[in-house]
Amino acid sequence: MPLLPPRVRLISTGSEITQGMYADSNAQRLSVTLFERGFRVVGHAAAPDDFAAILSAIRDAAAHSDLIIITGGLGPTEDDLNRDVIAQWSNQPLHKDDRAEEMIRERFRRRGREMPLDNVRQAFIPRHATILHNHWGTAPGFLISADEQRPALLALPGPPSEWQPMLAAALDGPLGHAFPDRPRRSIYSLHLAMIPESTVNGCIRDLFAGQPGCELTILASRGHIRLRIAATSATDAENEQNTRRLRDAIAQRIPPEFIFAEGPGDQTLPASLVALFRQQQKTIATAESCTGGWIAKDLTDVPGSSQVFKAGWVTYSNDAKIRDLTVPPTILDRHGAVSEPVVRAMAEGAREKSGADFALSVSGVAGPDGGSEEKPVGTVWFAVASPQGTTAIKYLFNGDRETIRSFATIQALELLRRALLKIPPESTLPD
Amino acid sequence: MPLLPPRVRLISTGSEITQGMYADSNAQRLSVTLFERGFRVVGHAAAPDDFAAILSAIRDAAAHSDLIIITGGLGPTEDDLNRDVIAQWSNQPLHKDDRAEEMIRERFRRRGREMPLDNVRQAFIPRHATILHNHWGTAPGFLISADEQRPALLALPGPPSEWQPMLAAALDGPLGHAFPDRPRRSIYSLHLAMIPESTVNGCIRDLFAGQPGCELTILASRGHIRLRIAATSATDAENEQNTRRLRDAIAQRIPPEFIFAEGPGDQTLPASLVALFRQQQKTIATAESCTGGWIAKDLTDVPGSSQVFKAGWVTYSNDAKIRDLTVPPTILDRHGAVSEPVVRAMAEGAREKSGADFALSVSGVAGPDGGSEEKPVGTVWFAVASPQGTTAIKYLFNGDRETIRSFATIQALELLRRALLKIPPESTLPD
Repeated sequence: MPLLPPRVRLISTGSEITQGMYADSNAQRLSVTLFERGFRVVGHAAAPDDFAAILSAIRDAAAHSDLIIITGGLGPTEDDLNRDVIAQWSNQPLHKDDRAEEMIRERFRRRGREMPLDNVRQAFIPRHATILHNHWGTAPGFLISADEQRPALLALPGPPSEWQPMLAAALDGPLGHAFPDRPRRSIYSLHLAMIPESTVNGCIRDLFAGQPGCELTILASRGHIRLRIAATSATDAENEQNTRRLRDAIAQRIPPEFIFAEGPGDQTLPASLVALFRQQQKTIATAESCTGGWIAKDLTDVPGSSQVFKAGWVTYSNDAKIRDLTVPPTILDRHGAVSEPVVRAMAEGAREKSGADFALSVSGVAGPDGGSEEKPVGTVWFAVASPQGTTAIKYLFNGDRETIRSFATIQALELLRRALLKIPPESTLPD
Repeated sequence: MPLLPPRVRLISTGSEITQGMYADSNAQRLSVTLFERGFRVVGHAAAPDDFAAILSAIRDAAAHSDLIIITGGLGPTEDDLNRDVIAQWSNQPLHKDDRAEEMIRERFRRRGREMPLDNVRQAFIPRHATILHNHWGTAPGFLISADEQRPALLALPGPPSEWQPMLAAALDGPLGHAFPDRPRRSIYSLHLAMIPESTVNGCIRDLFAGQPGCELTILASRGHIRLRIAATSATDAENEQNTRRLRDAIAQRIPPEFIFAEGPGDQTLPASLVALFRQQQKTIATAESCTGGWIAKDLTDVPGSSQVFKAGWVTYSNDAKIRDLTVPPTILDRHGAVSEPVVRAMAEGAREKSGADFALSVSGVAGPDGGSEEKPVGTVWFAVASPQGTTAIKYLFNGDRETIRSFATIQALELLRRALLKIPPESTLPD
């Protein structure tokens, strides 16, 4: 009989969330972790800093769940109501927990300060709750076990830097013990760049249903397509087998050169590219016009990128293209800055100057102004200069300035990947 | 008697949200708009694509609200359950709405296509509901009026590009008419960069409570501090007066040179900076090491930045610093790349080469590797070369690579703003 994942409902507290001042990023992060650890999140909620609203959110969540996880509202101020609300809901009056108080005092002591009187509030927790140590803040968390009337409840502070290690410890400790019969889950993803989602979907349409123990999902975000295989079963071995079968079926439909990364973790195109260039001991230079430094920024986001990234130019003006990249002024006059001859000259100039093995160049019309009938907003020319010579290609992107620049950035990185691996820039999956 | 804002509960539907594959960005965007339009959002919820879960979310939301807004689940597939769930909840059976069907057919016709049979599903809406035209997708929205048993309910499609114009139209039309007695709201913000939140908080502590018709909130995110004045009253004139009073009280405590922008809309530091440089007809060049192009990227995000941004260098290697910015090799040898003499030489080299009025340079240790006892991870040197000469300053930032780089970027932009306005780089608010 298959194991059923315990049902979890999440509650985020704070008027700053219900008023839209901050996004509720805890809900997403918690959902991912809980899914991977064999739970099933069946609902999110956010409530303002109001006793009745929080109590009502907890009661609603309790009706259809095995576990409630509530974040925020454990600070030392009078706005921090979660301890009191949970005490009332669970019928377990607050009492001062000496271990909790000592944790808080110790935290202040290590910073050479006395504990302010207000912070004693944070040591009051519902009787019979299990304290969770907070190594990164003053608010202890706590776990209340399920009983006949109520599901279990885990209270965590709001900041992810505080609750993430607390949740991990709770899953290996009291929370894990409270839900021993969870299924095993594994996530395995394949990553593609700048292939239309509908095209990818068309290739693997027959694989979405009827995969034993596996679920396949396409996630698309700004030119990054992720094929996510989520396997659920009683054992890791079974998950591995089911994942492998589905992964191989995908590989029969999508040739490997389109997949820039695959594996259990998440992966970005810049990180894959830096790893690939490090592995092949090749170096990169960039010459950017419309992307304005975004490509260099993405590459240097990656730790260790200094081993492959030699230099970047943001040649926004024609003067800079001529002076820094030795683009001949006659070409600019004749063809304009957004043209094949100019991106070729930019890439070759950057490669020559920097001494890098590969140089990438981009010039386009990001908008909102600057478009023409011949070169509408969204027109972007790319070139890659490499030991094999220089190739150039043009794309037309739809959207606003931000969208065009972000697509141009990921397209440029994908062209660089293809150049390194000698994959033709224009090859695409059959539609 | 003050007008009470109608209470709204939001529901986002989709298993991709409860599983954490995407963040629920609709909840935040809707909350902001509804707050500004005189409503009060008293709860968010997200439910998976499951009939019972969605129905239960609607019932829970109905208990304490005047209006429910539910997004998603209006597509043409069998996963799209919201029409059926809402029909059951409202006791208004679905019927095919001829106007809705014609809208959908017309949309396909304009693209030269026949309407696929599946899309007829989208024309089925609860009887007595008011149809909302969707100009950007196939799913019509609809509004169900409140009755004795139930609050009003507005059903919208998931993509913001579709629901945003539909919500705006509904607020000016049937939704606005259904809630005529809303208060007027105005939002006015003051923006500061790289001043510790606790310092700002200390300056204006006495202004948080007791402001008639106004609420003051500090919002901090990655070095950007926003002081948000939300005024609520029966008239715009009263809001303006209350806002002005609180704004002036803030101005007495925070000198104007610390405020990079203020006004009713949102504003970023790069956008303010580009506007300021355009106004003063001055130009910018950048020379980046550890920020790797992020400063140039942020400046060129701004439409019209080509008028002020002349050139940028990403001189990640010492070779590039020497070759492109004429940094003397002896300085690099003697002081290392992260040092005052090097950032000075970088800024002066960039200014000289580019011919820009102002040149900004950054060199630091972003980590995770490369730190030393003398120059720990987070050490960042900045210089600005200008017609007045060159100034340099060092900061130590805490956090991971991403945090250090983002703080260094906003700090650099703030130093550039101060240089243009001749504000001393090291001046700060009294703690």
